[in-house]
Formats: sequence, structure tokens, C-alpha cells
Amino acid sequence: MEKTSEKSNIDLLNDCDNFPYYETDPGLYDAALDRLYTLQVADDDTILGFVLPVVAEVLRGLPAWTLSDDDRSLVLTQGEDERERTAFVAATTLAMRQTGHFQVLAGWRDELYPVYGRDGALLFKIERAASPLFGVVSYGVHMTAYQKVADEYKFWIPRRAQTKQTYGGMLDNTVAGGLAAGERPADALVREAEEEASLPADLIREKARAVGNVSYFLVRDERAGGETGLLQPESQYVYDLELPEDVVPKPNDNEVESFKLMTTEEVQTALRKGEFKPNCALVMLDFFVRHGILTPENEPDYLDIVSRLHRRFEFPTVRLPGVSL
Amino acid sequence: MEKTSEKSNIDLLNDCDNFPYYETDPGLYDAALDRLYTLQVADDDTILGFVLPVVAEVLRGLPAWTLSDDDRSLVLTQGEDERERTAFVAATTLAMRQTGHFQVLAGWRDELYPVYGRDGALLFKIERAASPLFGVVSYGVHMTAYQKVADEYKFWIPRRAQTKQTYGGMLDNTVAGGLAAGERPADALVREAEEEASLPADLIREKARAVGNVSYFLVRDERAGGETGLLQPESQYVYDLELPEDVVPKPNDNEVESFKLMTTEEVQTALRKGEFKPNCALVMLDFFVRHGILTPENEPDYLDIVSRLHRRFEFPTVRLPGVSL
Repeated sequence: MEKTSEKSNIDLLNDCDNFPYYETDPGLYDAALDRLYTLQVADDDTILGFVLPVVAEVLRGLPAWTLSDDDRSLVLTQGEDERERTAFVAATTLAMRQTGHFQVLAGWRDELYPVYGRDGALLFKIERAASPLFGVVSYGVHMTAYQKVADEYKFWIPRRAQTKQTYGGMLDNTVAGGLAAGERPADALVREAEEEASLPADLIREKARAVGNVSYFLVRDERAGGETGLLQPESQYVYDLELPEDVVPKPNDNEVESFKLMTTEEVQTALRKGEFKPNCALVMLDFFVRHGILTPENEPDYLDIVSRLHRRFEFPTVRLPGVSL
Repeated sequence: MEKTSEKSNIDLLNDCDNFPYYETDPGLYDAALDRLYTLQVADDDTILGFVLPVVAEVLRGLPAWTLSDDDRSLVLTQGEDERERTAFVAATTLAMRQTGHFQVLAGWRDELYPVYGRDGALLFKIERAASPLFGVVSYGVHMTAYQKVADEYKFWIPRRAQTKQTYGGMLDNTVAGGLAAGERPADALVREAEEEASLPADLIREKARAVGNVSYFLVRDERAGGETGLLQPESQYVYDLELPEDVVPKPNDNEVESFKLMTTEEVQTALRKGEFKPNCALVMLDFFVRHGILTPENEPDYLDIVSRLHRRFEFPTVRLPGVSL
């Protein structure tokens, strides 16, 4: 539920990184896990994701899957390699789509996301829209384009199209998009910058700077579209781009309604009002931390915010994206 | 133990952030906690630190303390407020120093570190040298001073005096020091920059930029001095300072032997050889991440490194440092 009062920065974290932490809330964490099934593949005890019972029940008795109530596991039992596992997972997700009782699959993308096991091994790929049903980590790229004059920053902030299924009409990062299986983050950024903001490839390759990663564990609410309570751990590669005054981002597809050059104060006001898509708010906070806009002296929750912007997951993550190991 | 082979960047994390994580290693984490006592104050279930049995046993039967083997807790039972608790803790740590059987107290500093409870309440202060005996979070400031010409960085790197008790002769960050109770990070930075690197206060106040925080949970080895196995969760406020070519850091006390202006490649070679003090290596890696020197495409463990540079602790941390709540 959205709060009607103004959001503090730690509220913005709580809106997006809202799966419990064992270290600080062992009771809540254990209670959450008691309800869930762990996603695994055969002959491997690595936990790849968390699955709600309502999803797991649908797979009970399907030939390629074993649902065990004893150890609360959902195991993909078929498939000798990545290619075979991907085919079994595709058959399952297509069948789930056809039965039509998972609303989240209405947003089918025909785009495959990677699922990694130990040491960055690619275990299988899965349709993007289905990834929150299985609670696997998904990856993306987010870039903040800004102008800096003296010590004042201005940010190019897009408003999402009102018609978008997810977070329609909310504010976003200048460029953001998912990282498909086999894609290098730098290449995904070039593609998304062209598609979403009409920024030329040469400019991105020359001037965009990799500056870290923001990760959080989202329990989806109604704003995300589809079923609520689905588990979505996400890891976003973050980029900064300082733009000259004569370069102006423009919408290039129907995803973005408009861009506006906003002052730091305007961005902070919009954050407090909850106008940013929740994960994009975190990328803005990370920018503010890295550029000395949020400081130990002006932000009471500084340390907790910095840690929670960089959550470590229960699940293995990619090692070198774009490289098969 | 130091490895003789070259260290990867994830090895550098493993050298410093070496207490297990529940999420990825629940078995190891539980085994570690089974051995330890939790530090608490009376009428408060907040866990403030982890204490080795060899330390806790020394406090068994002391009037102000209750050591419980049932719930493995060490509780400070006396003291109604911060001032009184601090007095009881001081009496205990002074007695421990006089008995002389904790080597780590040979490095007595006469400097008080803060210990926070829920919502940033200051519960008590404790002698700096004693903080690893009680496993409480300690705070510091670290600054990297650099030159940037075109896209090339050079770093002002000090070598610690050979005579220093801890990590003698190792490479360090340009400026680094502990944050005493009641001190603002920006003020501590000004003081340490003058003391350690002869950098003027005006320059620091005008040009040093707060850029985040690096946190890790260190299990101390012999290089730290004193007993091994002591638990030291640390949270370091991180600053960057771009220096003009005519500003040269110089040693100003007996802590630093010399400064050298090193290229990125020279710093990376020294990191691989294990020449940096372990926590200072992490601050360098954080710089490399934020400035696009380490990227998703050149560092296989990029995501794990970024998360582990920003560990979230089991223990409450400071909210606004320098402000009593």
C-alpha cells in the first residue's frame, strides 16, 4: 500500500527492498521462508529462487518437476544441460500462459532471462514475464543522464507512459531496461539508450560510465501488475552519463511519455511524493550517495541506505555477463 | 594466513569480509554463532556485538555482568543511562587491561568509541582497543586523494610505518582514521587529513566529497595484532578528493613512512600482491567500481564484490553521527 504521507529515503528502500533480512529479522525471515518452496535443478542443492505455494501447486505432478512438501522444494528434474532445461522450462511457462490463470504472464515478452547456478554456470533461460513466478534474480541496466554546472546537478527524468501495464505514469531513470540472456550490460545500455531516449550509440560508448550495481529483493505489490506477493530479487548495473547542454533525450518508443530536466530539489520532492517507480528511486538515491548529495550529516539513515542499496542474495548471480562459463 | 599466490579482487574481499553470511552459508553462519556469546544491555533484546567464549569467561561473575550459558548471552546489567553504562564498561575494560592477558589491550588508545542500540540510541562508549573484544561495530573515515588527467587516474598512496603495531609497512588509503564518539565524519576527516597527510583543513572542507560507505565483518588474524579470531564489524565513511598537481600529501606524524603517487596499474599490482592493509584494499576497490575502472565486463565477481563492500550488519548502527538522539 502507498503511504499518503511524505516518504523518507529509508521509506523508499522499504518500498522496494522489502523481503526480510535474516541478520536483522530472523523471525520474519524464517516465517517468510516457511511459506515458500525453493527452486532447484536435479542433483544440485543450490537454491535458485523462492516460489509461492500458489505457483508451486500448479507444477505438482507435471512430468519435469518434483514438488516436495517435506523439504519444501520445487525441483526441475529433467534436462541434462542448459539447452534441455530451457526447453522444459519453456514448455511449463507456455502451458501456464495458456491456462491463463497467472495474470503476470499477460505481460509476455518473448524475451529470455538467464538463471545462473554455482560459479556463474548458466543453468537455463526463462521467459522474462515468468521470472517473478519462480523468484529468480533478474538483471538490468539503469543510467542517470545529468548536467552539472558548478556544483549543481540537473537530471533528465522521463515519465512512463500512462498506458504502461507496470507503474504507468511514474517517473523513471533516464534509461533502464532488462538484460537478456547472453547480453553484455554495456551493449544492453547502448540498445536501451537508443530505444528509450534517442541517445546515440557513440555517445553512450564514449561517455557512459559504469559506476556500480544496485540490488534489492522486491515482494511485488499491485503497482507491478499481476499477482501480488511474487518474489523478485533484482540486480541493476548502474551507469552515469554527464550530458552537454545541447544533448536532449527524446522519447523514441511508446514506453516514455516525455523527458524533463529536473533540479536536485525537484527530484527529491518527487521522491518524497512517491512519484518514482520504486527501483528507480533507489538508483537515484545511489547517485545522490556517490555524488555527495546525500551525506552522513544530512541523512540519518545513511549507513542503512548504503547497505540496502547493495543487497547480497541467497541465490547465485551472474559472474561475467555475456560470457558462458 | 596470507596466500602466496596473487590475490584476485574477490580474494581481497575474503581477506577482510570473512564472517559467514546466513543467506549464502547458513550452516557456517549457525556454527559460528553457536560458539559465540551475544552482547546485550539489561532490559533490551538488541544484539550489540558477538563475544568469543575466551573473552566472555573473564566477565563471568563480575558484578555488572551476567553471562548466561542457556541463551549464550553476555548482558551488561548495571547502568541506567549512557553515562552510567560507560562507567561500568570502563571499569571492566580497565580491569582487563590490568590483568594483562588480552594482548589486544596493549594497544590502549584512551579514545572512546560509541555503541548504538535501536534507532541510533547511544547506549555506551568503550575504549577503542577493547571494541574487538566485544565485537561491536566501529566507525571510521577513509579518503582517496587522486589526480585525474584525461581518463587516467593516479593515487596518493601512503606506506604505513614499519614500527606500527598493526599492519606495519603495508599500503593504506591517503587518509584514514577512527571516528570517536560524538564526532561528525566530516570533522574527523579534516583532523586526520591534517595529522596524517598534512592536507589543509580548508582544502578538505571545500573539495573532499562524501561518496558512500564501505562495511565488512572482519575476523581478525595475526596481522591485526592481539588475539586472533576477535570479531570486528566495521563501517567506513568514504571520501574522494581530486587534488591539483601542486598539492602533495606529506607525512605529519609517525604513522606514515612516505607517500607515493601510483598509477592505477601500480595500485592494482600492489593489491594483487596483498600489499594493502585489507580494509584499505576494499576502499580502493570501491573507488574502482564507482569510477568505472572495474566494470561488469572486466571483473567476473563484480556483483558479489559490490554487495560485499556494503555489508548489512546484525547490529544496530549509528543514525546521525555526532548528534545525540
